[in-house]
Amino acid sequence: MKKVINHTDAVVEEMLDGFVKAHSNTLKRLPDTTVVVRKDAPVSGKVGIVSGGGSGHEPAHAGYVGKGMLDAAVAGEVFTSPTPDQVLEAIKAVDSGEGVLLIIKNYTGDVMNFDMAAELAEAEGITVEKVIVNDDVAVEDSTFTSGRRGIAGTVFVHKVAGAVADTNAPLSEVKAAAENVKNNVRSMGVALSPCTVPASGKPSFTLEEDEMEIGTGIHGEPGIERVPLQSADRIAHTLLEKILADHDYDNSEVAVMINGMGATPEMELYIVYRQVAGLLKERGITIYANWVGEYMTSLEMAGFSITVLKVDDQIKSALSAKTDAPAF
Amino acid sequence: MKKVINHTDAVVEEMLDGFVKAHSNTLKRLPDTTVVVRKDAPVSGKVGIVSGGGSGHEPAHAGYVGKGMLDAAVAGEVFTSPTPDQVLEAIKAVDSGEGVLLIIKNYTGDVMNFDMAAELAEAEGITVEKVIVNDDVAVEDSTFTSGRRGIAGTVFVHKVAGAVADTNAPLSEVKAAAENVKNNVRSMGVALSPCTVPASGKPSFTLEEDEMEIGTGIHGEPGIERVPLQSADRIAHTLLEKILADHDYDNSEVAVMINGMGATPEMELYIVYRQVAGLLKERGITIYANWVGEYMTSLEMAGFSITVLKVDDQIKSALSAKTDAPAF
Repeated sequence: MKKVINHTDAVVEEMLDGFVKAHSNTLKRLPDTTVVVRKDAPVSGKVGIVSGGGSGHEPAHAGYVGKGMLDAAVAGEVFTSPTPDQVLEAIKAVDSGEGVLLIIKNYTGDVMNFDMAAELAEAEGITVEKVIVNDDVAVEDSTFTSGRRGIAGTVFVHKVAGAVADTNAPLSEVKAAAENVKNNVRSMGVALSPCTVPASGKPSFTLEEDEMEIGTGIHGEPGIERVPLQSADRIAHTLLEKILADHDYDNSEVAVMINGMGATPEMELYIVYRQVAGLLKERGITIYANWVGEYMTSLEMAGFSITVLKVDDQIKSALSAKTDAPAF
Repeated sequence: MKKVINHTDAVVEEMLDGFVKAHSNTLKRLPDTTVVVRKDAPVSGKVGIVSGGGSGHEPAHAGYVGKGMLDAAVAGEVFTSPTPDQVLEAIKAVDSGEGVLLIIKNYTGDVMNFDMAAELAEAEGITVEKVIVNDDVAVEDSTFTSGRRGIAGTVFVHKVAGAVADTNAPLSEVKAAAENVKNNVRSMGVALSPCTVPASGKPSFTLEEDEMEIGTGIHGEPGIERVPLQSADRIAHTLLEKILADHDYDNSEVAVMINGMGATPEMELYIVYRQVAGLLKERGITIYANWVGEYMTSLEMAGFSITVLKVDDQIKSALSAKTDAPAF
């Protein structure tokens, strides 16, 4: 295992420490927790927004904390859900009395632990709502999931909910905006190489020298099939067709994200974007805005995902709103 | 070779095509060239700034084209200098009559080809000045270099020169600002794995499973020594000591960049930043601002570099100025 780390059991602790040192102008860490919050939390009159999940997906999720996006992100150990007590600390830190929205990726552990935290918070008198993101069209049910997995499309949910909350909209509206994105976003990924969780020291799976896996999850969970390595254009075509077949995108405007999984050079992501832009144009679908880069990674996995979000006026305005989150 | 590409001889062409499609609001490509320019170039009353180099270092250099930074970036083939005719096209496209500054990384091919382009431009009546960046303290002379190599510190030169040019300062002042950064910036890197140039299909070098190379260049050129893999803290200490020993940083303020080479997870870059921030504090050096991420990569190489720039009021103001370049 070749990693730039100190101790395998300190990677999350030291990463969070480095992260808040690097972004100390706007962010801070709640003492003795794995929670990163806006320095000015709770923001009076504003709904609080909390997300999080296992570490190893950086810049998700702490990179999306900032004005106009998340109020707090809770980090678990690598590829492990954060515990309910940590999520509860986040909720308490960002509630200004207007309530808190939890944005959860659909993994069994995350759903359970965020649920439990929500119940504990409600018991303390805080109103909590939840949105569970399940944008990955690759597979129903998987290693850690009942139903579809939540992947890179979650970042669009963060952005839109955050922008709407920033207008001091009530919790019901912020939740509805998040649901609107959730209902209109679809993603799918591909892996060319596995990644290694520091504590295990071994690759999460193996792929032959000339093999790739279509539909792999962001923790290396199995996808749809293993096939010989294909051209960028063909892979992009396969993923995009499956995405477009899953929702009504006809004549629509969309936001597109080409998300690198960790070890895929930006050069390759732009080669993919070129093909995706061409295919969408052929289909009469207009790209409103695009994001090409690393937004929800899987440590040093090689591969990428495509996300397509059908946008309406609310989503367009929210995507274009300002944020000072470090990674958006 | 596992890459998300179509044809090995089309990677730069298709990447540039995807890149300008993705950033068509502000950037365009000069027809039949590998030159990316601001859509509004030449900007009346403003000195033009041109940089570039081999491809494979994305987001360098096209990612730094935009208001407040570069006016044009010229892309060569992967790890290959752009040709003089391409650089000439860039110079002509951005000259508004106020002259053009070329920011060149110190590699023999780049220096020669940018020089030749400058002569051709001068023959056409355009005033051209040059700054050659050589921030890598690892080695004197190397595979492609006479003298020290130019690496990630070049991005700070782009930013500061771009911000000063944006004030409509004359060419002499823009050049002096770039020289000021060049004289005060030092960098050094480490590689944990090689990268593969698509056209060659083979890794640029090999490293044993438990080995790393201190001081490797951004094209996989040899560094100082190969040693068993060390802890993040120890690697960071080694690189930083060599950087600090090379310039007078005592009691100064600095800008710091922790630059991922391509396959190093953001988690690891923040673990490095944590140590660098701690060591600088111990030495009485104050961090004015920091950048942690991928700024000048080497395809899918695993590793990172540290850059430390001693800042004065001009540099601080220029680093903090707005830019719409996609990657800064």
